Amino acid sequence: MEIWRVNTRTQTVRREPVPKEWEHLGGRGLSARILLDEIPPTCEPLGPYNKLVFAPGLLVGHRLSSCDRISIGGKSPLTGGIKESNAGGSSGFALAHLGIKALIIEGKPVPQGWWVLHLSADGARFEPADHLAGKGVYATASLLLEEYGDKVSLALIGPAGEMQLRAAGIQNLDQDGVPSRIAARGGLGALMGSKRLKAIVIDPAGGEKPPIADRASFRVAQKAYTKALVGHPQTKTYADYGTAAMVNMCQYFGSLPTRGFSVGQFEGADQISGEHLRDLLLARDVESKTTHACMSGCAIRCSNIFGGPDGKAIVSPLEYETIGLMGSNLGIADLDAVARMNREVNDLGLDSIDIGAALGVAAQTGLLDWGDSERALALIGEIRVGTPLGRILGSGAATTGRVLGVESVPVVKGQAMSAYDPRAIKGTGVTYATSPMGADHTAGLTIRAKVDHLDPQGQAAISRGAQISMAGYDTLGACIFAGFGFAAAAPGTIAKLLNARYGWSVSEDILAQLGQETLSLEREFNRRAGFTSADDRLPEWMTREPLPPTNAVFDVPAEDLDTLFNW
Amino acid sequence: MEIWRVNTRTQTVRREPVPKEWEHLGGRGLSARILLDEIPPTCEPLGPYNKLVFAPGLLVGHRLSSCDRISIGGKSPLTGGIKESNAGGSSGFALAHLGIKALIIEGKPVPQGWWVLHLSADGARFEPADHLAGKGVYATASLLLEEYGDKVSLALIGPAGEMQLRAAGIQNLDQDGVPSRIAARGGLGALMGSKRLKAIVIDPAGGEKPPIADRASFRVAQKAYTKALVGHPQTKTYADYGTAAMVNMCQYFGSLPTRGFSVGQFEGADQISGEHLRDLLLARDVESKTTHACMSGCAIRCSNIFGGPDGKAIVSPLEYETIGLMGSNLGIADLDAVARMNREVNDLGLDSIDIGAALGVAAQTGLLDWGDSERALALIGEIRVGTPLGRILGSGAATTGRVLGVESVPVVKGQAMSAYDPRAIKGTGVTYATSPMGADHTAGLTIRAKVDHLDPQGQAAISRGAQISMAGYDTLGACIFAGFGFAAAAPGTIAKLLNARYGWSVSEDILAQLGQETLSLEREFNRRAGFTSADDRLPEWMTREPLPPTNAVFDVPAEDLDTLFNW
Repeated sequence: MEIWRVNTRTQTVRREPVPKEWEHLGGRGLSARILLDEIPPTCEPLGPYNKLVFAPGLLVGHRLSSCDRISIGGKSPLTGGIKESNAGGSSGFALAHLGIKALIIEGKPVPQGWWVLHLSADGARFEPADHLAGKGVYATASLLLEEYGDKVSLALIGPAGEMQLRAAGIQNLDQDGVPSRIAARGGLGALMGSKRLKAIVIDPAGGEKPPIADRASFRVAQKAYTKALVGHPQTKTYADYGTAAMVNMCQYFGSLPTRGFSVGQFEGADQISGEHLRDLLLARDVESKTTHACMSGCAIRCSNIFGGPDGKAIVSPLEYETIGLMGSNLGIADLDAVARMNREVNDLGLDSIDIGAALGVAAQTGLLDWGDSERALALIGEIRVGTPLGRILGSGAATTGRVLGVESVPVVKGQAMSAYDPRAIKGTGVTYATSPMGADHTAGLTIRAKVDHLDPQGQAAISRGAQISMAGYDTLGACIFAGFGFAAAAPGTIAKLLNARYGWSVSEDILAQLGQETLSLEREFNRRAGFTSADDRLPEWMTREPLPPTNAVFDVPAEDLDTLFNW
Repeated sequence: MEIWRVNTRTQTVRREPVPKEWEHLGGRGLSARILLDEIPPTCEPLGPYNKLVFAPGLLVGHRLSSCDRISIGGKSPLTGGIKESNAGGSSGFALAHLGIKALIIEGKPVPQGWWVLHLSADGARFEPADHLAGKGVYATASLLLEEYGDKVSLALIGPAGEMQLRAAGIQNLDQDGVPSRIAARGGLGALMGSKRLKAIVIDPAGGEKPPIADRASFRVAQKAYTKALVGHPQTKTYADYGTAAMVNMCQYFGSLPTRGFSVGQFEGADQISGEHLRDLLLARDVESKTTHACMSGCAIRCSNIFGGPDGKAIVSPLEYETIGLMGSNLGIADLDAVARMNREVNDLGLDSIDIGAALGVAAQTGLLDWGDSERALALIGEIRVGTPLGRILGSGAATTGRVLGVESVPVVKGQAMSAYDPRAIKGTGVTYATSPMGADHTAGLTIRAKVDHLDPQGQAAISRGAQISMAGYDTLGACIFAGFGFAAAAPGTIAKLLNARYGWSVSEDILAQLGQETLSLEREFNRRAGFTSADDRLPEWMTREPLPPTNAVFDVPAEDLDTLFNW
């Protein structure tokens, strides 16, 4: 495999061999290594010294269920720290089939004109994209698929990324060619916008499946993993309800963000639950009943296409995080309304978590009544137009709180929390506080741990385990849910897959090794960027203000947070 | 003297003896000591754990020329670090006459209702101030002087402080009863707003001059100091031209911020110079010809009352920093226009430096044409109304750049630079970068040093000396210009004054001792608040983008910045 290094100022491409020290890494871990090796950690995120890295995980390219994810990395315009945001869809698979271990996008062009970066077996080229400027993600994807054929993969930004708004993400196509798999978090869409790239077209034609050193062993391990995954009860839950299954679980624990994270249970939870979502989809004549797969070959199929009363698709997928942040968090008990908001932020290329949190902050100032989805849609419309208020909201919850004068903002390191109030799920609070990524449930969700989530003791250890595993999975290119399968399969399944794929002889604890190495690289980057233990904290108000109905505050001892990464 | 501790939640006051370890400090040094001793450095600046400290300097209370300043301190809502902002006027004098060594304002009341804190020889009390809510600084001061008599001193906030905008300062009365001496920097007005205090009324009646241990020695030292100050050529310059004398000096060095810090010389410099200002004031029939004193007893008299063509006062004073940030920085070559803008931000209770810089950022996005003062006034008007754009601008230049998507923002630690482009005056760039305060010329201006200001070598040593002296002067309560007198008087004059005043026996290098102790306390606070060497840097673009006409970039070695405080 190769490193493709693209300079956006000179519009040149260099194809380089993979340095020895990078070989054992992929995805998130490789991205961290590259950023630490190549960019000044104190650099301006939207300036010429930052780089945007696309790295498929180590297991990407083989249609291994839920293991074809793309990791996108850079210094975050949102947090100022290192950032990896990953997504499903087909981008990772396509890059792997072109033999690209990492695509490194460098430099900063003059700020005029937009470009498409086209990658194929013939190499890379820039093509003018001014005709796409200002267009939403859906229209842009359609035009690009028309122009380049529907076999290509795409990574693209919407108007939010063009405006360099710090809640902008990077959209990727799902297996149906819908731009719906967003690497949402941390403002990487703004970073891509600063490089003046509207889209990356990845044409895998002429590429090939990555080589496998020992096909027979790979097949055996793959079978064991798939079987364990398919048989896992959680897979059935997700296949039935999608991630929206989480609504009732969070409601049960009193951790469902409600009305600006002021309450942990929502009286309208039934109307936004996974069960209700499923009933709606079954009752309506929606194209794809209940759920489907975002990546070809995925056995979990947690994704859905949400259709309106007429059966026509509104958005795909409608996920728990969006439902939590744009539903209960805004007091909106209406999945159709949430779906319409979701579609709008998708089309703008924005992180629905940070925008949902920002709207919750705006509601605290009276800019929006709780439950008023029309007003919420109008506010999202302001982002599209780029009004001052739109730019405030599009900059994410932290900046919205700062500008509008709201203290109760659910952020860590400037990034909004996902839909788990950390006062009632304290292990996830530890993850929010300490993850190098800022608040992010995908960095280490603890809600399934069989512990008292209100007890501050012992949560750090649970978070540590989850963070290590997730950093490992992100390095493999495996979805958060792949872990169900790997955990249930015979020990060493991951090692067997890697050894068969690469001809390595890594040991059974490779997941933890990769996870720890990745976290260490990321922590080191952040340290050099100026982060300290003062940044590894939840916002002060969550330590002061009790969360009904549990009336919990976040009280995990600071010492636990500060020693979490001592390994 | 005493410590007065006021709790804004319980509306109670405690008068306490001065702890032994605080006795040798005053002003900025005492404020730093109190903040480090009493508040969690990571606390939310607008939350209940932050405190607002008013501390007169050690020499305050004796009408010693330019030595009656008030230091106001707290964790900065703008920078997130420690903050001291000082001002002339009468507040320091009045507090000292009530025997108050420091006023510590604590707690956080329910967010409704506004209050006046009334201090007198009888103690402290809260009085309702809802009738003052939303009123500008000028109207508020008039009403308060009507109510409490014109012998009281005032520290008050405008609408910006009420809105908790992070560029809000705290206004104080000058000796003419005009609210014009603003402790502008770092958002302390927002902190005062978070405590729901519209104003502090200080009634010195019944108070008394602070005791002097050895009156005869004090008088001798005072005389030597005053003589040296009056005889200093710089005093004459400031008496003639006010601080606006600096326009031509900066123009000469190519360090006059012009059109958003993109150029270092302004073609309209003549129209905003101190010479032109003096000509205008002489030609117009303005109340006070040329300059006057802000504090009773000041021999420098650098302040002015700027009147329009009809002779009527527009603003008092019109200072160099405002002229640089709101004049040349916005391409506005019209002192009348700058004066009108200055009056508006004064009335709102805003820092004219950060607002001028924010407008320069807005101009880079086309929200304002260079030179369009009417539009600039309209934008300031948006702050008063509290529109989203107004709130953006009122949050200061850093947030304005972040929201509007501008990289070329002249800030350090989130605070706007004063009117000296640091690429052409590199020693002051070192001060901007390393001062615990964020960018601030009053932390250590180096423009008068007889060196090549473009040479990166040796600037750190010059900045260090200036920073130590300024931290020392701020601890004494001495104005930046008092240094001319102390430097020209016999060595040991400061020690003599302190020893005579307090019966101490401090040595001749007391200024440096106090300065170093103060800086060490402040650095320690910031360290605990999460600041690192990564925060002690100028913005990256100033290291990349040359400044015409010198075409200098900021290139003082990082090592020089990082070792500056190694003493």
